[in-house]
Amino acid sequence: MTQIEVSCQLNYDVRTPTVFLFQVTAAETEHQSIIDEKFSITPDVQVERCQVGFEGNQLQRVFAQPGQLQVNYQATANLKPEIDQPAGLQEWDAQHMPADVLPYLNPSRYCESDVLSRFAFEEFGSLQRGYSRVVAICEWVNGHLDYTPGSTTSTTTAADVLVQRVGVCRDYAHLAISLCRAVGIPARYVAGYAVDLQPPDFHGFIEAFLDGQWYLFDPTKLAPVSGLVRIGVGRDAADVSFATITGQATLTQQTVQASGQQAANRASAVSTA
Amino acid sequence: MTQIEVSCQLNYDVRTPTVFLFQVTAAETEHQSIIDEKFSITPDVQVERCQVGFEGNQLQRVFAQPGQLQVNYQATANLKPEIDQPAGLQEWDAQHMPADVLPYLNPSRYCESDVLSRFAFEEFGSLQRGYSRVVAICEWVNGHLDYTPGSTTSTTTAADVLVQRVGVCRDYAHLAISLCRAVGIPARYVAGYAVDLQPPDFHGFIEAFLDGQWYLFDPTKLAPVSGLVRIGVGRDAADVSFATITGQATLTQQTVQASGQQAANRASAVSTA
Amino acid sequence: MTQIEVSCQLNYDVRTPTVFLFQVTAAETEHQSIIDEKFSITPDVQVERCQVGFEGNQLQRVFAQPGQLQVNYQATANLKPEIDQPAGLQEWDAQHMPADVLPYLNPSRYCESDVLSRFAFEEFGSLQRGYSRVVAICEWVNGHLDYTPGSTTSTTTAADVLVQRVGVCRDYAHLAISLCRAVGIPARYVAGYAVDLQPPDFHGFIEAFLDGQWYLFDPTKLAPVSGLVRIGVGRDAADVSFATITGQATLTQQTVQASGQQAANRASAVSTA
Amino acid sequence: MTQIEVSCQLNYDVRTPTVFLFQVTAAETEHQSIIDEKFSITPDVQVERCQVGFEGNQLQRVFAQPGQLQVNYQATANLKPEIDQPAGLQEWDAQHMPADVLPYLNPSRYCESDVLSRFAFEEFGSLQRGYSRVVAICEWVNGHLDYTPGSTTSTTTAADVLVQRVGVCRDYAHLAISLCRAVGIPARYVAGYAVDLQPPDFHGFIEAFLDGQWYLFDPTKLAPVSGLVRIGVGRDAADVSFATITGQATLTQQTVQASGQQAANRASAVSTA
Repeated sequence: MTQIEVSCQLNYDVRTPTVFLFQVTAAETEHQSIIDEKFSITPDVQVERCQVGFEGNQLQRVFAQPGQLQVNYQATANLKPEIDQPAGLQEWDAQHMPADVLPYLNPSRYCESDVLSRFAFEEFGSLQRGYSRVVAICEWVNGHLDYTPGSTTSTTTAADVLVQRVGVCRDYAHLAISLCRAVGIPARYVAGYAVDLQPPDFHGFIEAFLDGQWYLFDPTKLAPVSGLVRIGVGRDAADVSFATITGQATLTQQTVQASGQQAANRASAVSTA
Repeated sequence: MTQIEVSCQLNYDVRTPTVFLFQVTAAETEHQSIIDEKFSITPDVQVERCQVGFEGNQLQRVFAQPGQLQVNYQATANLKPEIDQPAGLQEWDAQHMPADVLPYLNPSRYCESDVLSRFAFEEFGSLQRGYSRVVAICEWVNGHLDYTPGSTTSTTTAADVLVQRVGVCRDYAHLAISLCRAVGIPARYVAGYAVDLQPPDFHGFIEAFLDGQWYLFDPTKLAPVSGLVRIGVGRDAADVSFATITGQATLTQQTVQASGQQAANRASAVSTA
Repeated sequence: MTQIEVSCQLNYDVRTPTVFLFQVTAAETEHQSIIDEKFSITPDVQVERCQVGFEGNQLQRVFAQPGQLQVNYQATANLKPEIDQPAGLQEWDAQHMPADVLPYLNPSRYCESDVLSRFAFEEFGSLQRGYSRVVAICEWVNGHLDYTPGSTTSTTTAADVLVQRVGVCRDYAHLAISLCRAVGIPARYVAGYAVDLQPPDFHGFIEAFLDGQWYLFDPTKLAPVSGLVRIGVGRDAADVSFATITGQATLTQQTVQASGQQAANRASAVSTA
Repeated sequence: MTQIEVSCQLNYDVRTPTVFLFQVTAAETEHQSIIDEKFSITPDVQVERCQVGFEGNQLQRVFAQPGQLQVNYQATANLKPEIDQPAGLQEWDAQHMPADVLPYLNPSRYCESDVLSRFAFEEFGSLQRGYSRVVAICEWVNGHLDYTPGSTTSTTTAADVLVQRVGVCRDYAHLAISLCRAVGIPARYVAGYAVDLQPPDFHGFIEAFLDGQWYLFDPTKLAPVSGLVRIGVGRDAADVSFATITGQATLTQQTVQASGQQAANRASAVSTA
């Protein structure tokens, strides 16, 4: 078990009456329990909790008047990952795939698995199926992209990244997800906190469906997967923006932190979903 | 109440052991009841029913050996649409939107509402909010695109269509959905059968969320909305392909039909979800 | 006649032996004479003048060793534009178009006139042909884009801009050029200096071919066309980068200026090519 | 010396008065002489020869009235290629590159060398410079794309092809050109006839600039480079369409042929420009 402290602070300059949907709170799952948590807004406005989507991501809805708005979130999460021997983890056939993972085979906004299917088959189609194939995809992404802050935008897609060979964590995740889906492995995007991430920021990584469970992978290799605290999951980054804004407001400051002890886990498969 | 007969026949040349996910059966909803239905495969293979995704789309999973495969589907659907006076139908604020419709504001594979938001606001941002704004969006799409079979492919997106000004029903739907989402109206893709569609084919149309319900719109105007029989809904066409194939198989023939009496409904809002 | 002083200073941090192709010097044309000019490099390295392409753009080629590199350019240009009555300027038929303007009807890197031809015909196809149609295209571009520094990148194209509705001078020019070509009017990109441009920078504008001559238009309306000093022309911005770098070097400072007296010219057509 | 017979027949259904620019006649160059040639139009209309662009491509301009239009072209070309030992052919530095080849380093409509520069450097940046690097690029393109008629359209670009891994001759050429330019080798598109091409059609291939001359390469390997008869060259296929149409006309039949004896030339570099 691992105990991790996470926090974020977001400051906004709000110019019109504005609705915010924040998605920054750590999720309560079978493998991640929140033992201590505080979400506060200054000035004091009403905060409504929403459960959204198939996976029940938790959002905070806030209606703010013009002026300064500050979001503070702090939590302590206990991670109880299920750690498996990777060698035995199998891909499941389309024939036996549970119905509720099927949508994670579909292409999505930033993951055009449909247009890059030939590439995926050419590069990964003949590899041994199972955990090692997902590792091979993540290694390929890690080895062929340059991690360069500022090189991409919020509308950059996996196909863009495959051509440009440069990106940040969300781009790494989108490309790895697309390649998994293209060869028939359900995959999804996870937004979260990552221990000791440099520079500190929200992080994006992936889960692939193997042997009946979702397993974590971080194609950026910027943080050990045992130090990842989940906020929410979705088809891609479009589903887990940390803030969705209806109105006029500008983010003026953002601070994100995560720290804690976590075991090294390079040789293990980690399932926390 | 309207009674509509729908049917389809799909023939495949199967070259390897192949998994098919068919999404062709009419949905059972509060407003659409299926009074008679037959889904059959020749040769006789096992058919597994799956419920998929947040909306519970119904799929038939089939595992087929090499050879000929024929799918036959016939159903009689009773439509009991809720017909409202359009004038009163309001858009809901982001503040009051039910949590389960929020994902239908996100951009998706073929609906890049994020990149065309400025265009949407410029063109539709100052219109009166409500049912008439969705109508205005559908009219704009109808008036500015040329309906041209073969002009687009399965990877064409709303942004492509906005530039090229040409497409088929799925393209019309994707663009209308994107514009709705961009101005803050949840919208989704509906795959179905359409009475008297020329040429006969599966059809794609949209639903927009107004006053707490989903209302039907067909930006192509190729069929009256009271003659639309729902198969399934999704973020866009990626979620409701009539056949998803894992293996090697070629569609050699496709026949789709829908017929029945339906009321004219030009002046009414129709909710069937 | 108008006398305009232009200058630029570019500082580079050169990290490897690097070849620079600078394209910053004012062109000598029938309608633009350079009465005084100084191009210098610090440290003192050999500068080779090259004439490039069909239009004979003038480039300075420099081979620099690691260290600091400073480019200084100052010139006084006399503009003798030919000013015509716009009303009489005709588009020429494809049948009578001079052969050497035909390439300016082709799509180019940032001007995909091929994919936006339907849009162009729908919007501008029925307008009266001639000078007023080019004005209508420029007005449309000006009225439908938001001028926002930093909103686009060096790889943004006219089709991107048509969707996103935001850009800077090169984006305005690319879209206007594409729309002209799409309706059959040869059009090209001009890089230059613009009097009193705010903020000061290199500028990008266009020329359209009417009645046997090239006429100037600035879709941004940020500067009067009589205050534009030409550096070079090309199919789009790809042909007239102010610096093309082979090696590793970073631009650390850029200063661009243009000042002078120029006549107002809102009601006239200006040909300076 | 090689003698090759080429011919094409194009039939059009012309619906409005229409201007055609045909680009189908074999070029007269230092290495390709036309010893016999007949270009005819039925019905008999005036044909104007135009020289277009920097390279002097030859076009036939025809103004046709509604009705049937038939183009017949037949020629006998003598090829006198200069055949060199590939091993010695060097890339020239940007420092010494002739000015008139510099535009062939710029990105163009279908060759986005700017967006795929990282990929090109990663894959080909460390290879030995010279003829063998261009061969390596063409081999890579040949080995990583599937040649599939109908898989792409007239607006498909090199970046699309790099993602989709499928295309026809023009797509192979565009990707190879882009990769050459991205690593600093001037490259251009050649449209022509190819002996024994199956299925018979116009062909697209490339030239790369090495050691002061343009050398031929065919990334499709569908025809020996000594059996290629040049029509014209350009930055990409946009410059050398076999027919550019202003008006309404539909191609109803197209026949293209090329036959002759040509030497095998697998181990030699061929310059015909």
